[in-house]
Amino acid sequence: MRHRLTPDQYATGILAGDRLVLSQAITLIESRRADDQLLAQQVLARILPNTGHSTRIGITGVPGVGKSTFIESFGTHLTGLGHTLAVLTVDPTSQRSGGSLMGDKTRMETLSMNPRAYIRPSPAGDSLGGVAHRTRETMLLCEAAGFDIILIETVGVGQSETVVHGMVDFFLLLMLAGAGDELQGMKRGIMELADALAITKADGDNRAATNRARVEYQNALHLFPPTGTGWFPPVLTCSTVTGDGITSIWQTIQAHQELTTQNGQRTYRRQEQQLSWFRSLLRQRLENRFYEQAGIRSQLSSIEEQVRTGTLLPAPAVDQLLRYSPENQ
Amino acid sequence: MRHRLTPDQYATGILAGDRLVLSQAITLIESRRADDQLLAQQVLARILPNTGHSTRIGITGVPGVGKSTFIESFGTHLTGLGHTLAVLTVDPTSQRSGGSLMGDKTRMETLSMNPRAYIRPSPAGDSLGGVAHRTRETMLLCEAAGFDIILIETVGVGQSETVVHGMVDFFLLLMLAGAGDELQGMKRGIMELADALAITKADGDNRAATNRARVEYQNALHLFPPTGTGWFPPVLTCSTVTGDGITSIWQTIQAHQELTTQNGQRTYRRQEQQLSWFRSLLRQRLENRFYEQAGIRSQLSSIEEQVRTGTLLPAPAVDQLLRYSPENQ
Repeated sequence: MRHRLTPDQYATGILAGDRLVLSQAITLIESRRADDQLLAQQVLARILPNTGHSTRIGITGVPGVGKSTFIESFGTHLTGLGHTLAVLTVDPTSQRSGGSLMGDKTRMETLSMNPRAYIRPSPAGDSLGGVAHRTRETMLLCEAAGFDIILIETVGVGQSETVVHGMVDFFLLLMLAGAGDELQGMKRGIMELADALAITKADGDNRAATNRARVEYQNALHLFPPTGTGWFPPVLTCSTVTGDGITSIWQTIQAHQELTTQNGQRTYRRQEQQLSWFRSLLRQRLENRFYEQAGIRSQLSSIEEQVRTGTLLPAPAVDQLLRYSPENQ
Repeated sequence: MRHRLTPDQYATGILAGDRLVLSQAITLIESRRADDQLLAQQVLARILPNTGHSTRIGITGVPGVGKSTFIESFGTHLTGLGHTLAVLTVDPTSQRSGGSLMGDKTRMETLSMNPRAYIRPSPAGDSLGGVAHRTRETMLLCEAAGFDIILIETVGVGQSETVVHGMVDFFLLLMLAGAGDELQGMKRGIMELADALAITKADGDNRAATNRARVEYQNALHLFPPTGTGWFPPVLTCSTVTGDGITSIWQTIQAHQELTTQNGQRTYRRQEQQLSWFRSLLRQRLENRFYEQAGIRSQLSSIEEQVRTGTLLPAPAVDQLLRYSPENQ
């Protein structure tokens, strides 16, 4: 039999900053059991007034850009300044259970030993939407547990960036010097979502190249549509070897938070994020309810094939599928 | 009593290129009456084998960039080469009925008198999804009527670009020389979707500025992630006053079509577009079915307000709404 606390016990433990209780509560959020989900919602309702105070930072970049070492270095800098830090990961391809954290803990060895940092990998989820939803709830638990900075990292290629952008206050895009091939795997449209670019590996022989890249990207960003927030995304460089630039990245984030707090954009962004979280969850639930009906999935794949090849139009295809659905009688 | 033809009569008329029958069939597509919709689907099913042969071009740009004069000039060039051209507009803010076309006809005076061109404005629609769906079906009718180039223009700001991108073979972004303020109103992420940029008003005193802008944008585009199709979006300049550059834009589109036909990307793009059209239509129908239930909408607005301000979490908000829904019993 699995051990469960009462909703009040979870809430009290989390608010006291008890890591064990926090981890157990996150496991509840990740569970697919209906009773766990109910309990998780009761816990979330209790801690809700104690959420929202953190700086939520999304970090993305293509494989090879050095996300893990950057987070190690950046995170250690932040804890050195007295901050407490939770690192979450959005990885829709992950099939890890809540128990096997070794992957992430090995990736961020220093940070995982740091008492002011808490690392929690992506929940194993069936869909990007599901993973995103659970990560948002986990973020709220971490805020209630007192962490004042939340880093949310994307893993995987080209899918989760937009989703992470939709749950943070600041979206940092890590880049490599040199254009073209390195960006293979980055989804188009992501550059324009970034609140700042940081070019990594600005050390040794690579310094000149990163400086050139910085100027090029800065010129390019001037050509983008304005963010509408009064903020102009800067291009920075950094090195996890020398530590150069790590401080400025944090200063940039702070400047952005100050500006957007003053002009109301930070609150506005969060309110819009909450609303679209709700809408996507509703849409997801309506879709699931539909797809879970017996026989729909096999119908669907045959219909989709006809639509794809252009022998069946979408409108009659939808009609056909809805007619098949017993719920629609 | 409204006059209706039989499905076969519509199909025969359309395939013979009869403009009157084509317009009547488009009106059927735009109608909300269930019997009209049924008839429209019967017509579409009949003409489906005769669709798909056109070059579908999306044209977008912020207000003031000169979309209408560009389409006049570009369209006249195309008909001069012997092509026949249908110009459709996606404008989710439009409340015009199918009957009042004067707005668009005045905007494109020369083209509207051109016997090789056919201009049809956006259907009046409740939602962007609805408008997009009807525009796609209208495009198919125009193809069946023999038009070998379809131009789909976005109207309005920052909403319809992605939708139009999702229904064309080539997405052309018109830009003004000079960065920054002019782009106000353009949604971020759109630049990275373009298959080509064309800087308009490259004439007179503005020539030097457009040439500078061309170089700047071309440099910027090199920094974008690759399209994954082997195509590198070029930056062109054009003038509707002198006619300069209009020919190269058409040559660029032809080169793109040739490349993507050879490497299979054109077919792939269309198949993916059809599939996501189907999926969004299904999602839309499921949502509508839900929202149309008595009382849901008033519940929804109160729930959404609580979610937006952060006093209610999305998961219990969705539960609350689904419990309220009689369909879920």
